[in-house]
Amino acid sequence: MTVTVAFIGLGIMGYPMAGHLAKAGLDVRVWNRTLSRAGEWASCYRGTACSTVAEAVQGADVVLTCVGADQDLVEVYEGDDGIIANAKEGAILVDHTTASARMAEKLASRASRRNLGFIDAPVSGGQQGAENGQLTVMCGGSEEDFNKALPIMERYGRAVTLMGPAGSGQKTKMVNQIAIAGLVQGLSEALHFAEQANLDVSRVVDVISKGAAQSWQMENRSATMIKGEFNHGFAVDWMRKDLRICLEEARKINATLPVTAMVDQFYADVQAMGGKRWDTSSLIQRLRKFR
Amino acid sequence: MTVTVAFIGLGIMGYPMAGHLAKAGLDVRVWNRTLSRAGEWASCYRGTACSTVAEAVQGADVVLTCVGADQDLVEVYEGDDGIIANAKEGAILVDHTTASARMAEKLASRASRRNLGFIDAPVSGGQQGAENGQLTVMCGGSEEDFNKALPIMERYGRAVTLMGPAGSGQKTKMVNQIAIAGLVQGLSEALHFAEQANLDVSRVVDVISKGAAQSWQMENRSATMIKGEFNHGFAVDWMRKDLRICLEEARKINATLPVTAMVDQFYADVQAMGGKRWDTSSLIQRLRKFR
Repeated sequence: MTVTVAFIGLGIMGYPMAGHLAKAGLDVRVWNRTLSRAGEWASCYRGTACSTVAEAVQGADVVLTCVGADQDLVEVYEGDDGIIANAKEGAILVDHTTASARMAEKLASRASRRNLGFIDAPVSGGQQGAENGQLTVMCGGSEEDFNKALPIMERYGRAVTLMGPAGSGQKTKMVNQIAIAGLVQGLSEALHFAEQANLDVSRVVDVISKGAAQSWQMENRSATMIKGEFNHGFAVDWMRKDLRICLEEARKINATLPVTAMVDQFYADVQAMGGKRWDTSSLIQRLRKFR
Repeated sequence: MTVTVAFIGLGIMGYPMAGHLAKAGLDVRVWNRTLSRAGEWASCYRGTACSTVAEAVQGADVVLTCVGADQDLVEVYEGDDGIIANAKEGAILVDHTTASARMAEKLASRASRRNLGFIDAPVSGGQQGAENGQLTVMCGGSEEDFNKALPIMERYGRAVTLMGPAGSGQKTKMVNQIAIAGLVQGLSEALHFAEQANLDVSRVVDVISKGAAQSWQMENRSATMIKGEFNHGFAVDWMRKDLRICLEEARKINATLPVTAMVDQFYADVQAMGGKRWDTSSLIQRLRKFR
């Protein structure tokens, strides 16, 4: 019997992710806030565009969501027209949004009252990872629910891992973003220093990327940082949303994040410089501005 | 004809580096401030322990130094008993110390007045790299001098690169240290957050090290950071010396290094916690202290 899935939210991530499910032969029903984009998706892939969330999720074995933030999750999950009220009994709900751990815990608890499974499953790997089906998926929930949703997620996930109970996927994603924040600022300061020292910056990167300063960001973003191109990935506006979540969670769990908090403020400067849609490596542009 | 080299400074780096030269069949003459260590070296390798710098450098084709900091360089290079006064005409002087760019420029200029070549050539790769002959060597100087010294440096260097005129090796090393400072603090905050969130921290590292948060430090230091072991590399005291050089140079060239300056202060806290000899990944211990 064909598995029926609903996919809610066809942004730059959700659009290709839902596409992988359709290409795998699943019966995919999609919904998007801007309905025309759902129609566009359905003309590109084999699947059904729905005009309401309720219509999309009715009868689905697995309901996947990938929306913007906590408030968008409230809109699609709650209320009479929402996912929880309309999903069929026993369905598994999987949320790929990067959101707060508290929201994941809340949705998991509401879902369980209606005998629905819930997995928080934020992703990393960006638009390219979504398109190539090479995402890292960090999951929180029960092992039973996870195992049911795993074959679906593996259609676009290269590494899909259960990290612990509800909220653990979100917390793992936060660890990822915290590590990136300090790392990208350090790399920006390093390249900025190299520029001010009149070094051949590309050659410097070639040399130091063989050793203890090496990072994915150094290998994949230095060249575009040197050129001043900032359209190669995750946008500053989204990073600020994620860092807000990290800093709020840190308050709750008593974690001390001095550089993460500072880098969040630096990204606010980048936004003020007109860089809301620039990628996260644009921290270097802020340093250059002072020169 | 056998090439004669002098090696000045047999610390944890210089000792094995000079050893590689002796094993390659060069005539190696060594000097060390604590003379007994030179004797120990000579009983371990084929070579000559000298009791003064002047004795070691007389007749040497290439003179290599690897000492602590600027002040140590003044001691061994300058004065009637120093390297510049006693090296034979046409000799190449190579300094592997991490020191200021200004010191490199000064030594290069003094050397050239006596028809001596000079290359500033700080290294990265740590004690292990020195022992395995796998160091990265970042050089500043003329191409002619560099080419003469290259076959010697390749005895312990995996990547030996000329970065530009005198001082460029030091400036490249500074870029490396600046990149590491922000990166290690970001990684520390990430792992500290994961601990406070009660995640399985090793599993988190496994998952996120596949993506955009990946770094050499994450792959090579996370496990020991989790265990609280800080005897796996470059000491905090030495890192503070290097960061002081970076921050002073940044002042001169008008580079803005907010996180690097902050991390330097964090390392001061680690020193105050008794961590002078801990490795640079001990920044996480400072975050744990507040909990």
